[in-house]
Amino acid sequence: MDLVPASEIAHRIERLQTMLAQRGLDGALIFQNVDLFYFSGTMQRGVLYVPVGDDPLLMVIKSLSRAGRESPLKNLVQLKGYSHIFRVLAEHGHHEPARVGLEMDVLPTSRYLWLVQRAKGTEWADISRDLRLIRMIKSAYEVEQFRKGTAILARGYREIAGIIREDMSELEVDGHLALAARRHGHMGIMRMRAFNQEMTYAHVLSGDSGSEVSFCDLPHSGRGCCPAMPQGAGTKLISRDEPIGIDYGVAVNGYVTDQFRTLVLGRLPDALARAHDCAVTILDALEAEAVPGASSAGLFRRAQAIAGDWGLAEHFMGFGEGQVRFVGHGLGLEIDEFPIITPGFDLPLQENMVMALEPKFVFPGQGVVGIEDDYRVGPKGLERLTGLDKAVIKI
Amino acid sequence: MDLVPASEIAHRIERLQTMLAQRGLDGALIFQNVDLFYFSGTMQRGVLYVPVGDDPLLMVIKSLSRAGRESPLKNLVQLKGYSHIFRVLAEHGHHEPARVGLEMDVLPTSRYLWLVQRAKGTEWADISRDLRLIRMIKSAYEVEQFRKGTAILARGYREIAGIIREDMSELEVDGHLALAARRHGHMGIMRMRAFNQEMTYAHVLSGDSGSEVSFCDLPHSGRGCCPAMPQGAGTKLISRDEPIGIDYGVAVNGYVTDQFRTLVLGRLPDALARAHDCAVTILDALEAEAVPGASSAGLFRRAQAIAGDWGLAEHFMGFGEGQVRFVGHGLGLEIDEFPIITPGFDLPLQENMVMALEPKFVFPGQGVVGIEDDYRVGPKGLERLTGLDKAVIKI
Repeated sequence: MDLVPASEIAHRIERLQTMLAQRGLDGALIFQNVDLFYFSGTMQRGVLYVPVGDDPLLMVIKSLSRAGRESPLKNLVQLKGYSHIFRVLAEHGHHEPARVGLEMDVLPTSRYLWLVQRAKGTEWADISRDLRLIRMIKSAYEVEQFRKGTAILARGYREIAGIIREDMSELEVDGHLALAARRHGHMGIMRMRAFNQEMTYAHVLSGDSGSEVSFCDLPHSGRGCCPAMPQGAGTKLISRDEPIGIDYGVAVNGYVTDQFRTLVLGRLPDALARAHDCAVTILDALEAEAVPGASSAGLFRRAQAIAGDWGLAEHFMGFGEGQVRFVGHGLGLEIDEFPIITPGFDLPLQENMVMALEPKFVFPGQGVVGIEDDYRVGPKGLERLTGLDKAVIKI
Repeated sequence: MDLVPASEIAHRIERLQTMLAQRGLDGALIFQNVDLFYFSGTMQRGVLYVPVGDDPLLMVIKSLSRAGRESPLKNLVQLKGYSHIFRVLAEHGHHEPARVGLEMDVLPTSRYLWLVQRAKGTEWADISRDLRLIRMIKSAYEVEQFRKGTAILARGYREIAGIIREDMSELEVDGHLALAARRHGHMGIMRMRAFNQEMTYAHVLSGDSGSEVSFCDLPHSGRGCCPAMPQGAGTKLISRDEPIGIDYGVAVNGYVTDQFRTLVLGRLPDALARAHDCAVTILDALEAEAVPGASSAGLFRRAQAIAGDWGLAEHFMGFGEGQVRFVGHGLGLEIDEFPIITPGFDLPLQENMVMALEPKFVFPGQGVVGIEDDYRVGPKGLERLTGLDKAVIKI
């Protein structure tokens, strides 16, 4: 089992401590499992306290022994339950620190109110955005994990092209994608940070399923099986000559990859084939222009302008109520990381951001076509993290 | 696509309003997607305001049209974003209500602090436990959904017994379980309410994988693929004469089912076969004794006593650091619903609770054996929601 290298953890803790010092905080209490894993190398149940100018303290409820095998941190102690945090902190020289950072974007209200009540001398600060900015810049080790994921996706797309038949249900195609993903090493879950947002390894959207509008912040949602899971594959059967949009993701050592390919059994309607060509044209343009310093707003408008030149503006990134205003998003331990390639995201691109770019077109009643690939921002432009061909996959 | 019947939603809203009135609240703002679905019949992005003595108002960000097709509620309005909530409430006659309930166990801190800041005249109350108590009692419609889920699981267990071979990896077995689940109608996600807790459709734990201790609040966790997903199937290959513990779940129309069977290729070691017999004995005893009015503490101690009589106390529900103190849990739209069959849970059983009972035994280095089935509490005892045989499944 691959462990997170000690040098990675050391570097991350150092960046966190620098941020805390800059914000005038004494430390951070890390509760969320993904942040905990990022800064400790283990996802066992517990809390991490990272003080400025001292070693981190990982308090583990369960399992301390497994955490000890996985985390390169030096100070690991048993925690009987969350209610013992302040006693354990005090025992390790951290008696009610004055100003402490919290992940307020994910921490449940009841736990926050308990902290406020319990540590009356402590002032709490929201460090959600700072944590996301730290996690936004990837190391060489992290980039390598995405490559492992996209290798699984390439195998999965090849395999599914040999399995799809006319009248197979979207659900069955989805099941085969799950089998391929797990067989080849998908860790079994895809994580998303935003409240109430959920995802699975795949959307399988054939024909008009691809133009169904639902809650997702995506150009496509799919019908899903029921109102309780209003996205992804449903009972619709695959037909000839309609687009089969497959959004496919796996995670390896925590890192989420995310691609989209358009498949077809037979041939695409001309207008949709042309829209797919436009999506590839947009992706090629963004690959050339997404250099360090480029603005998200500029990249989004460039993509929109190409869609407009092709007469496809109203189909770009969804149609009508389903249209969304982004063309890419950061990837990492969660699928909704920074940057977001949208007009409102104000940070210029930086080297070693990792992101998915996903130009897509939706045609009401006909479906979705497009492409999505994953990239690292290199010093002179994008480095593509997959070797998968961009063309429509003919079955 | 099955919609939630209007009569279900009306009854749920009525129970919520009764609770709110009893607590002296003016209404509740429901943010979490699962609660939103429970009270509105749709899981589109938005917020539900349920006032005492007036009709609920469902404010939908996306998609209003899909929400309108799915929800039997009468008042649905477009919401531009969460920041517009109070304006829309005021427009509909709810100007800064004095006391409002919130789901503080799941609502992120930053959203809570925004509410406090924005509506200075409102006092906020935590109704998390009240909501869980309402959801704890199931209707006939809800019980029927669990039966659909266990029917899928029965097919999945039968199919997987025909697929498992020596030297197949746990991951591949897990993939086949996913394929069976989706092909037969699993909605694609399993939900859990507790912060930081996660689950997938399966744990596949062969031999010593079954005794691996990890973060889960379960007697078994499995190794998983990596520290970032420290539960479930891993790369271990299936061997002869070792237990293969398969915890398997699917969800239908939102409702999560959860079973466990012990499989074996060849034959179980004698001590483990005997422990499996003990697990079935415990399950039979609980089935007879779990009547309305029975206490969780009593049922747990009864299970523990039988394990003790068989000389298996230290293996019951985990071993050493991995031992947990419960033998069952409620099921519903989330897998960690009330009741919990543990000494600390103080509500007596009531008719129409639905729960999983799961006596299991863990042997360090050898694995996990046991059984888990789902039940409705009937007027005179448990009604089993599956017809699946309780025996070890021989491959």
